[in-house]
Formats: sequence, structure tokens, C-alpha cells
Amino acid sequence: MASLFTPCSDSLTLADPLPLDGGQSLEGVQIAYETYGTLSPARDNAILICHATTGDQHVASPHPITGKPGWWDRMVGAGKPIDTDRFFVICPNVLGSCMGTTGPGSRAPDGQPYGLRFPVITIRDMVRAHMALLDRLGVERLYGVVGGSMGGMQALSLSANWPDRVERVLALATTAAMPVQNIAFQETGRQAIMADPDWRQGAYYNSGRAPDAGLAVARMAAHITYLSEETLSEKFGRRLQDRDAKSFGFGADYQVESYLRHQGASFTGRFDANSYLYITKAMSYFDLAEERGVGAHHGGAARLAEAFAGVKARFCVVSFDTDWLYPTSESRKIAHALNAAGAQVSFMELAAPFGHDSFLLDVPALDRVIAGFLSR
Amino acid sequence: MASLFTPCSDSLTLADPLPLDGGQSLEGVQIAYETYGTLSPARDNAILICHATTGDQHVASPHPITGKPGWWDRMVGAGKPIDTDRFFVICPNVLGSCMGTTGPGSRAPDGQPYGLRFPVITIRDMVRAHMALLDRLGVERLYGVVGGSMGGMQALSLSANWPDRVERVLALATTAAMPVQNIAFQETGRQAIMADPDWRQGAYYNSGRAPDAGLAVARMAAHITYLSEETLSEKFGRRLQDRDAKSFGFGADYQVESYLRHQGASFTGRFDANSYLYITKAMSYFDLAEERGVGAHHGGAARLAEAFAGVKARFCVVSFDTDWLYPTSESRKIAHALNAAGAQVSFMELAAPFGHDSFLLDVPALDRVIAGFLSR
Repeated sequence: MASLFTPCSDSLTLADPLPLDGGQSLEGVQIAYETYGTLSPARDNAILICHATTGDQHVASPHPITGKPGWWDRMVGAGKPIDTDRFFVICPNVLGSCMGTTGPGSRAPDGQPYGLRFPVITIRDMVRAHMALLDRLGVERLYGVVGGSMGGMQALSLSANWPDRVERVLALATTAAMPVQNIAFQETGRQAIMADPDWRQGAYYNSGRAPDAGLAVARMAAHITYLSEETLSEKFGRRLQDRDAKSFGFGADYQVESYLRHQGASFTGRFDANSYLYITKAMSYFDLAEERGVGAHHGGAARLAEAFAGVKARFCVVSFDTDWLYPTSESRKIAHALNAAGAQVSFMELAAPFGHDSFLLDVPALDRVIAGFLSR
Repeated sequence: MASLFTPCSDSLTLADPLPLDGGQSLEGVQIAYETYGTLSPARDNAILICHATTGDQHVASPHPITGKPGWWDRMVGAGKPIDTDRFFVICPNVLGSCMGTTGPGSRAPDGQPYGLRFPVITIRDMVRAHMALLDRLGVERLYGVVGGSMGGMQALSLSANWPDRVERVLALATTAAMPVQNIAFQETGRQAIMADPDWRQGAYYNSGRAPDAGLAVARMAAHITYLSEETLSEKFGRRLQDRDAKSFGFGADYQVESYLRHQGASFTGRFDANSYLYITKAMSYFDLAEERGVGAHHGGAARLAEAFAGVKARFCVVSFDTDWLYPTSESRKIAHALNAAGAQVSFMELAAPFGHDSFLLDVPALDRVIAGFLSR
């Protein structure tokens, strides 16, 4: 049971096939995860952290490829807002990803990589895998689930679909139904990957080449949406990169161009293009009400309220004023629907300059909100 | 002189080399243009219309490839806000484009297409070509110049660099210096094109294949930025395309995905990828103060005011409340700088639901503003 102690990187294989929303099921699903802290004897101090699109299980330990600190190192640890002296923190790599959990780059039962034979999955499928992991770890009921962006979608899905298994839900910078503009951005990213001849209909794993050029473009386009205009202006403005005058060529003249090219290129070293397709598709598909079978007979807010009808957890919903990808209006819809469903919810918009990425960055007010919500 | 009468599609070749901001000059520049209406005997009723990124000279006549009405058919014509019964309207295809004016797809003096041998150009270079065209048409002084988006940049550049040649400037949904977020979006589009192996470093014209896949992705990414979230939600929402349920595949499930794919694919039939590179680069480079040689000794607003120091025209600056690509804050900077420079300027933000594209669409308030401004 070494996996229950801190910090621990582990993986396990599910004994039973994992049923999926698309109707198929997956055999031999492997789940890679990290844990921090110790599960209490009463097994009542577990917090599940759900990562975002291109995140991973290395929430507070160095990334094995980049060597950079965990993506939420500032939030998770001894004495930090998600305090590993008190809580048993579990962070799994999501289904469909590429950091150890089964995804399109994993070997299918025939020994060859799945590629596009991997079934298209949903956010609820990711959460279903989390639930199977919790079963194996002996966690019947979570003290809390925490997630930002796609992590917040998982947190909401968990609360609505497995209401008995969580007491507190922290949903940050997220939505209960992917807004159309985000579907549009994600479709553009997928088209960039699928336009790359090295993609080979997803069957590139044995070709010696990956669709890095397409994946880099997808990452560049997405990365812009994670930042605020304010961040871009302050960090780069119209400043030239390593030169005094415009090049009158197609190199990277401006710092922001150089930065984006670097973001795109470095991303290809740590992420699988097919995983990017599957995960963004799951996000585009996400509509909690639809997932809960609520049809069009309920309109707008009432529809979402019905989706939350059976929830038992307390909720904390947080948005950021400069986040234009998952703006405050999306969080407000969640909060209103939870209220209408009779759930206990606190909702706040925090001021932070960093755009959508604010939930990952230095926003002391967020630390206080998270620590406070988890203390009660 | 048939070119002076209405409607007329024509082109001419400049006798002298066109000097460029990059230090080179271009021999034998051809300019394709349309005119509508009749130049008055006093030659004082000419209005220059400057088109946007992927626009062309077919402002009020059917597009020769798509057969669609001119891009500003609603605005230009007999009895319309830009009234061809009264004004002599000139709309040239910009330098670097692909609709008849010299660009990277044109033949260089050696008889081969320029490709990347075409010099990188600026907005002022485009305007310099316009000025040469006006010389040939016998128009010393414009009654007005009108443009939206990149057309607005040309209008501003003309007013500041050739102050004696224009009396009225209508700048719509534009900026005096490309904001960093737009530079970032444009760089992503260029990278999508340059990542396409069919691009061949720009030398694809004789290869039998063009970088259509990359150009389509660039167009998709850009197209999203032209629309408002409101338009996307109303027009598409999360509605599925031609199906009752999600496909659990990578086809276009949602209407917005199908729409974007169509926008991308159809764009490749009417536009040259290299022209897209050159024109977006010119936009990213655009900074009116820099163009006017105003250095960093003046900060922010004062810098732009100095750039406008010699202007003689009256200005009308218009933004749209749902335009997040060239938001009202950009227009306000222009208006404030013009005020500081002692120029006569009216500035207004119009309410319109269509995002950046509002200047092209059915916004009756814009019609009234344009007709009113041009009547005085």
C-alpha cells in the first residue's frame, strides 16, 4: 500500500472493462496517478484533483520530461491551501491522455497502438475511470474534488453523476456546457493536427514521425486563449525579439511570436497529438445536462438545474475577471442552477490579471478561497 | 478613359519602380482596381475605399470566383451611403494580394513567380501604391478615404503620411498599432501555412499543389476572431449538424465545426497562401507612430498624437461594442490622439451584434454615420 503515502507516483490496471458513454468498453485500462499525504483511518480525508486539458498527475512533483515543478505545486503540499499534512490528495492522469493512463497511444489488446481505434470518450468517461481508481484505493467518499477548466468539468460531472461520493466540489474557471466559441477554437486545433501529413489518420506511432507541426499550431492557437490581453500587453507588448528593427522577413520579429513558437514546439515534446484530439473532443462534447439525460423540454437554466437535481455536495464556484475563454457568465450559470437545485453554493469572481490561466498562477485570493472552503 | 465611368474593372502598370519601407523597390507594379460613378470636372468627388485583409477591389460588383455580391454592396452604389451618383469611388486591390495587383504570386522580372522573393511590405507600402494609382487617375486630392479593419489602417496611414491628399477619413473597427493579441493570432495563422509541406518555402506555384490545408486552418482560426460570442451562440449554439446524436468520431458533430470547415475550405479557392502571409505580416508590423518615425521619447498617447501632427483631414472613427479583435479601446486611442493633435474628429461606438465583422454587415446606424459624415 505504498501508494497511499506521500509523495507517490503509481499506476494500476483495472480488472473489469470500463464502460464508456459511446457504447463501447475498454479492457485493461491502466491509470497513472500520484498521491500525497496519508489516507486517514476513517478514510474521510481524500481530495481528488482533476487536471486540465494538457495537465497530468504530476500536480506537485516535477514533470518527468520537462523537469519543471508540478503544475499546482503552489497549491498542493504541506501547509499549502490543499494541505497534504491534513488531506490525502489523489491526482490521476485522465483517460485518453498520454502520461501513463490508457489513451490512443497505448497498446490495444492486439499489441499495436490504438490510434484512431481508441474510442471517443467523454468527460463522464474520465470521471468513471477516476471512480474505479477510488474503488481500488479504498476511498468510498471524497472529502472533496477540485478542478480548474477541464478539471472543473470533471468535478461537476462527478458531483452530478456520483452524488454519494463527494462532499465538497471546487470548480474553477469552468463551464457546465462547452461554449460554442471554445468548440470553434478546439475544432481549429484538431484540424491543424489532422492537416499534418505526418498524422496519417492517427496511425503515426510506428512511422518514426509524429504530427509535431500540426500539434504545435494547435497549441499556439489554444495558448492565446489561455492568456489575457492584459498579460500579453504587459509581458510582450509590441516589443521586438532580439533585434532593433523589423526583419522584413518571416522569422519571429516580435517577442510574442517567438514565445508562441516556443510554446508550440516545446509542447510537442511532452504531449501526444492523438491525445489532444480525444481530450479536446471530450471537452467539446461536454454538456452536463445532456450527460444527465435532461432533454430540451427544460430550457436554459432550468435544464441545468435538473441536471444538478440529486447533488449532495457543497459547492464553491470561482471565475476570474480576465478569463475570456470560460468567462464569469459560465460560472454564474452553474451557481444559479445549483441554487435552483437547492444545493449549497458559494460563487465568486476573483480579480486576477492572467486570463484563463489565473487558476494556475499566483492569485493569493484563490489560495484563501480554496483553503477556506476545504477547512469547513 | 473608360476607367473613370461606372462600374469599371481595370488594371494598370506603374511606370516607375515603387519604393518600399523595407528598402527595396518593386518594378512594374500592376494595380487592379474598380471604379464606380464619375469623376467630377473639378476632380473633387473621389472616394478611396481600402479593403480588409482578404478583401479585394470588387467592393460593389460580383466576385469573379465566388459570384457573390461585392463585399460592401450594401454600402456602395446609387443612392447608398457611399453614393455613386455623387461620388467617384475607387477601390484598388492592395499590394501583396492576389486579385490582380502585384503580390507574391505574380511573376517577377525573371518570369517566375516571386514566392518568398517578394519583399515584405507594410501598410504604408500599400498606401504608396494607392497614391500612385490616384496619380494615374488624375486625383490629386480625395474627397475621402474609407476603410474598416486593415482598410482603416490604410486610411490612417494615408491621412498621416499624405496629409495634403485627403479631406475626410472614415476609420472603422481598426487600430493605429496592431494589438499584441492580434499579432499572436496572425502568427498562428502564418505558422499553420508554413507548417504545410505543400507550402515549400513559398515556391509552390509550379508544383501543382498549394498549401490549402494550412491556409484553411489559418482561415478558421482567423474567422473565429471576426465573430462575436453572441453571433456564434445565436447562429450555431451547441446544435449538432445533420444528426440527432453525437457521432463519437472526429467528423464535424456541431454546426459551428461544419461551418468553420466550410469557411476554411472555400477560402482556399479564392485566396493565395503567400498573399495571406504577406498581408498579415504587414498588419502585424503596423504601428502608425513607428511609421511616422516617432520614437520612444514620447510615451503612449503622446507618441500617437505626434504621428498625427500634420494631418489636415476631418476624421470619423467608429468601433463596435461586440468587436473583441479591434475593441473600442483601440478606436478611443485614435480619437484621443487626433484630438491631442488638434484634428477634427468624431468618435462613436456603435451597438451591433456581429463582432468585428459588424462593419461589413447590416448595421443601419453605420449607414447613417457614413452617409452623414460624407455629406458635410
